[in-house]
Amino acid sequence: MLRAKRELTIEWGHCDPAGIVFYPRYFEFFDASTANLFKVAGIDKFELRKKYDILGFPMVNTDADFKIPSRYGEKVSIETRVAEVGKTSFNIEHRLIKEDGQLAILCHEKRVWVTQSDDRIRPKAIPAEVVALLTSANNERTAQGSGGI
Amino acid sequence: MLRAKRELTIEWGHCDPAGIVFYPRYFEFFDASTANLFKVAGIDKFELRKKYDILGFPMVNTDADFKIPSRYGEKVSIETRVAEVGKTSFNIEHRLIKEDGQLAILCHEKRVWVTQSDDRIRPKAIPAEVVALLTSANNERTAQGSGGI
Amino acid sequence: MLRAKRELTIEWGHCDPAGIVFYPRYFEFFDASTANLFKVAGIDKFELRKKYDILGFPMVNTDADFKIPSRYGEKVSIETRVAEVGKTSFNIEHRLIKEDGQLAILCHEKRVWVTQSDDRIRPKAIPAEVVALLTSANNERTAQGSGGI
Amino acid sequence: MLRAKRELTIEWGHCDPAGIVFYPRYFEFFDASTANLFKVAGIDKFELRKKYDILGFPMVNTDADFKIPSRYGEKVSIETRVAEVGKTSFNIEHRLIKEDGQLAILCHEKRVWVTQSDDRIRPKAIPAEVVALLTSANNERTAQGSGGI
Repeated sequence: MLRAKRELTIEWGHCDPAGIVFYPRYFEFFDASTANLFKVAGIDKFELRKKYDILGFPMVNTDADFKIPSRYGEKVSIETRVAEVGKTSFNIEHRLIKEDGQLAILCHEKRVWVTQSDDRIRPKAIPAEVVALLTSANNERTAQGSGGI
Repeated sequence: MLRAKRELTIEWGHCDPAGIVFYPRYFEFFDASTANLFKVAGIDKFELRKKYDILGFPMVNTDADFKIPSRYGEKVSIETRVAEVGKTSFNIEHRLIKEDGQLAILCHEKRVWVTQSDDRIRPKAIPAEVVALLTSANNERTAQGSGGI
Repeated sequence: MLRAKRELTIEWGHCDPAGIVFYPRYFEFFDASTANLFKVAGIDKFELRKKYDILGFPMVNTDADFKIPSRYGEKVSIETRVAEVGKTSFNIEHRLIKEDGQLAILCHEKRVWVTQSDDRIRPKAIPAEVVALLTSANNERTAQGSGGI
Repeated sequence: MLRAKRELTIEWGHCDPAGIVFYPRYFEFFDASTANLFKVAGIDKFELRKKYDILGFPMVNTDADFKIPSRYGEKVSIETRVAEVGKTSFNIEHRLIKEDGQLAILCHEKRVWVTQSDDRIRPKAIPAEVVALLTSANNERTAQGSGGI
């Protein structure tokens, strides 16, 4: 299965008055990590949308275990991998890892491949070559500088 | 169990290039809805932190089912209720409801009551009066204008 | 000139480890206030885009004076008015006011009315009826519950 | 004067329904670039707060010219430099540069060095060694992977 890793630094603006990351920010990180997975495989979300005439692959379900908080200035990495590929949906797992190697967050997400016509959003079969891409083994590559803030 | 309702409008800046709400934004909404639950009960998060000498009540687990996307300009409501109160943690349920009454998102969260000493964050027993507050029956009140953006 | 007022509450997630609003959040508030100005005049940004075949009215310049910080739980209001309407651009002024009436932030913005063709974004003359709308006198109305988070 | 450069990628979640970066996001980028300036000089914001007993260096004024929009997937760089150092405040300039070298955004900011006592925030003289740091010449270094999302 496809996998990728990103490194990022916790910024001031990610944190709340308790001095720890405001948890919705983690989902921003994870969303970018899923997009990065496709990038690592050689195709970005923008191209995917044009090439396969899709609106995108919105989230249908996500759950996350927050085990250890993170603070401003910490360097963390996110290990992302495809967990399962279905007919119209796929599952992703993210592991946010502290600098000392501890697992801080475990997150799963299920996304659906959708098209839009007449303002209606509908699931669509994931094309065979995208399935092939998602299920391919690859050497985990680390993306740096792909951060946001 | 304590419950509250908030109404909000989907803003331009909540949405992504697919024209639908960028899903991490929903967790921002839900976090504010949990804070609002305490406000409705007569005590805000800031006072809670001072009064009970806690760092806050960070998220330990959340899961969300995204059933129907929302778009710029839509008016939605979030119905929030305490689902369970434990010794050091409590569970909340959020239901994001469309204007036509359809359930768009179902979200559960588990939060832990924590204190901080020497840079270490530790769970702490929820005080009896806070337990009483969270488990009290109340008439659902709707907060307007409590939005963010 | 068109004017409108919105009331909002500072949420936990708007604030940084110093306990005050993370300043980029104010620009989220102001962007929603500009959109609200059109809504108050009876037309939302989404309709504007369809009706006049525009991409939107992106920011070309903004400046802001941050006079007094705001904190979690505060109720503030934003008074927004059209300051000037040109051929392809318009200027807006936002005043963020504390509950005690003090001016906390003064912000100006200049936006340009743009169309897009072949991936190129170009300024376009603001239609006469939109100019009429923006320059009309109206009784300031307060929007509540139009918040985001 | 101190200067630094950061490279980042525009993520999906940075963009709005017009497909371009939602402008408040740029201020998140710039805030992290200012923090990075200190990091490059060998001291992070967290240490600064402890060492000099300050609350931080909140924004008092910022203005930005948005010359060219950016889209999902673009790689941009931000060149940041100290423009002026006063008694209790300092000015920073950010230049967001496209991959082809074009200047997309020019932003200035003025920040004030503040302390807090009894809930009151007050300007404080910038310590001589911080002035020396900010006004020192350095070879511009590029930070990668310091991004947020």
